[in-house]
Amino acid sequence: MEIVRTIRDLRTCVQNWHKAGQSVGLVPTMGGLHDGHLSLIAKSNNHADKTVASLFVNPSQFAPHEDFATYPRDETGDLSKFESSGADLIFAPNVAEIYPDGHSTKIEVQGISQVLEGEFRPHFFSGVATVVAKLLLQALPDVAIFGEKDYQQLCVIKSMARDLDIPVEIIGAATVREGDGLAMSSRNNYLNPEERAVAPALYRIISEIAENVRGGQHPAAQRPWAEAELTKAGFGAVDYVAVRDAETLEPVNDASRPARVLAAAWLGSTRLIDNVSV
Amino acid sequence: MEIVRTIRDLRTCVQNWHKAGQSVGLVPTMGGLHDGHLSLIAKSNNHADKTVASLFVNPSQFAPHEDFATYPRDETGDLSKFESSGADLIFAPNVAEIYPDGHSTKIEVQGISQVLEGEFRPHFFSGVATVVAKLLLQALPDVAIFGEKDYQQLCVIKSMARDLDIPVEIIGAATVREGDGLAMSSRNNYLNPEERAVAPALYRIISEIAENVRGGQHPAAQRPWAEAELTKAGFGAVDYVAVRDAETLEPVNDASRPARVLAAAWLGSTRLIDNVSV
Repeated sequence: MEIVRTIRDLRTCVQNWHKAGQSVGLVPTMGGLHDGHLSLIAKSNNHADKTVASLFVNPSQFAPHEDFATYPRDETGDLSKFESSGADLIFAPNVAEIYPDGHSTKIEVQGISQVLEGEFRPHFFSGVATVVAKLLLQALPDVAIFGEKDYQQLCVIKSMARDLDIPVEIIGAATVREGDGLAMSSRNNYLNPEERAVAPALYRIISEIAENVRGGQHPAAQRPWAEAELTKAGFGAVDYVAVRDAETLEPVNDASRPARVLAAAWLGSTRLIDNVSV
Repeated sequence: MEIVRTIRDLRTCVQNWHKAGQSVGLVPTMGGLHDGHLSLIAKSNNHADKTVASLFVNPSQFAPHEDFATYPRDETGDLSKFESSGADLIFAPNVAEIYPDGHSTKIEVQGISQVLEGEFRPHFFSGVATVVAKLLLQALPDVAIFGEKDYQQLCVIKSMARDLDIPVEIIGAATVREGDGLAMSSRNNYLNPEERAVAPALYRIISEIAENVRGGQHPAAQRPWAEAELTKAGFGAVDYVAVRDAETLEPVNDASRPARVLAAAWLGSTRLIDNVSV
């Protein structure tokens, strides 16, 4: 497994693989690796001959009051996990390599970026869309893999890549969960033992909503019940619990088209998100 | 010369050239071809083995009150000019090929897009940056040529391509002028004979400003004189006359770094822009 830190070295490596007739998958990560990330690498290896994983905590997707400074960083640990997971190349640039002086371009995906997470983190998806477009254009992979854990992010990235005609296939990978159902996330490390014990209620409740809607209950009727359940379980503020069209994230009235239950809620000072298919 | 109308056919053609070891240049146009456009094709042929010209009047760079509907369109005439100018492939898509239903992504280049033209046409550069990014990613050329006639647009495109890591070299080409100095532009067709006789004053006056600044006069002192001269010559409203840094378009106090004189002014209902190097 090779480690490169410049766009030039990344491109040389990918171009050599392409010249040799090998296809390339990209797995963008911000480090803090867990089994969810490693499943993305496995998925990339299923779709492409070679896998590049990137390791970059993207400052432009954090608001000033968010956790950019404290986001889990452990390059040595991450590299060792990448190595054993079957990645072929790690791209670990510094901030100046990605955002040199004078960088002034941003990408906005309208509509789908502005609901749910977009209401609570208004600059988040522009930061994500911009850095992902850059990584895709730096590496020019054949496929790129993103986790369904960040379902709305996956939708935004699919829209962005399609709208800008980036020549890549964007592939979603199923959420990996702890034994008790909690979706794996680097931010789970912020939870204290009491909070950690409460956390799986989020998955339990959105799974129950999916079942209710499949059973014919109206999506809009789910929210008050879910908020009460989350509060009873020990959660704090509930940012949203919503049943939406699985592609457009627009509100739905039933399960006649593919739909998704998405939720975000606070446990102490940690904000958890999760989603399931209806 | 081949004509294609889909992104798929465009990519097949360019990929075949690349596989054969040939480099490719792209010249985006909105049609209404004049010798300025043909000089871009000649420049592309100097830099690349094959030249693709695109022919697409981009709706997203026109404001509702602007001239999208009346912009000069003559595909037959344009194709014949492309043919004799040495283009190898014409990409002439319809609007739905470029902006299919659901398109919702836009690119903003902050700072440099917001001054001069950006103050008078606030959505213009976002429309330009987005469509140019799409054309670059559709064709993936080695070089792309843009005229210095639209100098700020050239700066915005260079910033956008650099910031998003689009693997292409952006090359500017000198403005082509009529015998009396008027910069060639598809919009010159809008001028009546009296306006056409007045129009060259724009170039004469910005050239004089460049000479004054080279001679040590302060850039800020040029504007009142230039406005009076344009009015005396027969121009209507003057949107701006400015001396700016040639790269950042920020105001300058002298000619110690490369600078540019840029101007926009109205002749009847036609808005003319021009620029010269200091």
